[in-house]
Amino acid sequence: MALRGGIDLGGTKIQAVVVDDDHDVRGQQRAQTPLKGGPPDIAAAMATALRAAADQAGVAPSDLAGVGVGSPGQVDDATGTVASARNLPGWDGSFALADALRADLGVMQVRLSNDVGAAADAEAAIGVGRAARSFLGVFWGTGVGGAVILDGKRWTGRGFGGEFGHTLVKLGGAQCPCGKHGHVEAYAGRKAMEARARERMDKGEKTMLFKLMAEKGRDRLTSGIWEKALRHGDPVAEELVERAVQAIAGGAASVVNLLDVDAVVLGGGLGIRFGQPMADRLAAAMQQHLFVESRPPRVLVAELGDLGGALGASLLVRTAAAPATPPAPAAAG
Amino acid sequence: MALRGGIDLGGTKIQAVVVDDDHDVRGQQRAQTPLKGGPPDIAAAMATALRAAADQAGVAPSDLAGVGVGSPGQVDDATGTVASARNLPGWDGSFALADALRADLGVMQVRLSNDVGAAADAEAAIGVGRAARSFLGVFWGTGVGGAVILDGKRWTGRGFGGEFGHTLVKLGGAQCPCGKHGHVEAYAGRKAMEARARERMDKGEKTMLFKLMAEKGRDRLTSGIWEKALRHGDPVAEELVERAVQAIAGGAASVVNLLDVDAVVLGGGLGIRFGQPMADRLAAAMQQHLFVESRPPRVLVAELGDLGGALGASLLVRTAAAPATPPAPAAAG
Repeated sequence: MALRGGIDLGGTKIQAVVVDDDHDVRGQQRAQTPLKGGPPDIAAAMATALRAAADQAGVAPSDLAGVGVGSPGQVDDATGTVASARNLPGWDGSFALADALRADLGVMQVRLSNDVGAAADAEAAIGVGRAARSFLGVFWGTGVGGAVILDGKRWTGRGFGGEFGHTLVKLGGAQCPCGKHGHVEAYAGRKAMEARARERMDKGEKTMLFKLMAEKGRDRLTSGIWEKALRHGDPVAEELVERAVQAIAGGAASVVNLLDVDAVVLGGGLGIRFGQPMADRLAAAMQQHLFVESRPPRVLVAELGDLGGALGASLLVRTAAAPATPPAPAAAG
Repeated sequence: MALRGGIDLGGTKIQAVVVDDDHDVRGQQRAQTPLKGGPPDIAAAMATALRAAADQAGVAPSDLAGVGVGSPGQVDDATGTVASARNLPGWDGSFALADALRADLGVMQVRLSNDVGAAADAEAAIGVGRAARSFLGVFWGTGVGGAVILDGKRWTGRGFGGEFGHTLVKLGGAQCPCGKHGHVEAYAGRKAMEARARERMDKGEKTMLFKLMAEKGRDRLTSGIWEKALRHGDPVAEELVERAVQAIAGGAASVVNLLDVDAVVLGGGLGIRFGQPMADRLAAAMQQHLFVESRPPRVLVAELGDLGGALGASLLVRTAAAPATPPAPAAAG
């Protein structure tokens, strides 16, 4: 049986897994993404995490059929490079990530993919995709990532599709981190929500958000902090989350009106953290915008949770038993 | 060579064509849609128009391989019925349109499809689809119809997809004819534009729109009236068209950010009338909302113009030479 490695590279964490042909996790390791240095340091930390996961699975990295990587930035699998991963330290240029990992780990095959795309492919192949052939993936985190899965396959058009976070929901609305106005991410991205919370605190509004941040010794409002503030009925947190819900629900309803997909699948740091109650809240908020109100899609939480990105990365590896990228649901499980 | 019939049934006109295997039009007839009576009267008018088109092609209707129909309302090809075509007189219930036409015309095969879908299929198979494999069709008329063509095939999801007119562009915005708020059609549908123009005239604003309507003896603001008012620099017409452009462009940009299609294709009564200058204007307005500004899609005018719906309907007919519905571009032309 061939084992495969998968690494999800994020702005704050590196998640590595080693899986078998049935996609069962045989080893896993989570590490902090280096906050200093540059791409070679990050590649070394990725290799270390993968090595620990392989160790747990009882194999050497060189025994793996290959390693797949889900990465932010501009990812080019053909050349094995990642460029402009601006959430990562010193990664403004292009770096030969596949070569670095191949050399460090002694594996033959290293495959690269976009991080959100990998997570969506994993859900399609071995997660919610078993129940929903076509869905909109909403990855609610620092930004708002997206993916469109149609009949089990990810649709990216000319290569840049999937940007659900940049769906317009309010003409002349708030500025998005991308520079445009009124996009979903301008209201729902954790980064945008944090900036808005800070503005309101600076104007004298009472909120426990930044006190919680200080108590936890964090430098940003994590998913856990938002959740705790909501649990305590913090009014600023409540209002900003409601604003985010309205934006995501409005954008998702537009996609449903256009594509009539089976489901909307909620993932990402905030999405996974808030879970099914939030999926239900989104479903309710979508109703006011649906053209065919009587046939709403299901709103589900990503099944693979935090491991989705790494599992999706592992699916990039070609083996005799596993099909080529991107995996089709019929071939999985 | 097999000849096929196609009928586009609209709220104001019936367009019939007879085409050959190369999709060349051998006969055509346009008629007014009856404004009184009910479905049987409309079916009779459709048969009369088709008979005239067949006559022009030098054949009897019974010589045709079949007749396809693009219809508004809820269209069910399996049962041959059309229900709830509320723009047509007395058509609130269900009517066996296929049976009526079969009996009247003596043809064996009558196939039904949604009107916008038929026009989009025609563009995909024998119109702009030859240049653009994937596109968003925007049918700008009384309402704003839509269609998504991906790799040459129309995508409708669970059967109700394509509703581009019901894309949210302004949270809490203007009420749409569908009852929801902030949809593209609430700003860009001709019906909504006319209602808004009337409001502004009633408030004392100067506009030539309704004077032109009276001069032309019409009971609504037709595409031609809007065009003439724009040509004369009518300020109300200018503002309302600009508002429509912003809504369509915002919605279309969101679709491009998500699906990264090759092109946006402008059709429908107003779209065809305004033509390529309007397509260029939409392209410019989309730029402010695109996530990847450097790779905009092309914005094209539907190639088949006014005949698109009827040509699309003719493609529904199965012949030995022509493929099954929906037609794929590869098999056409």
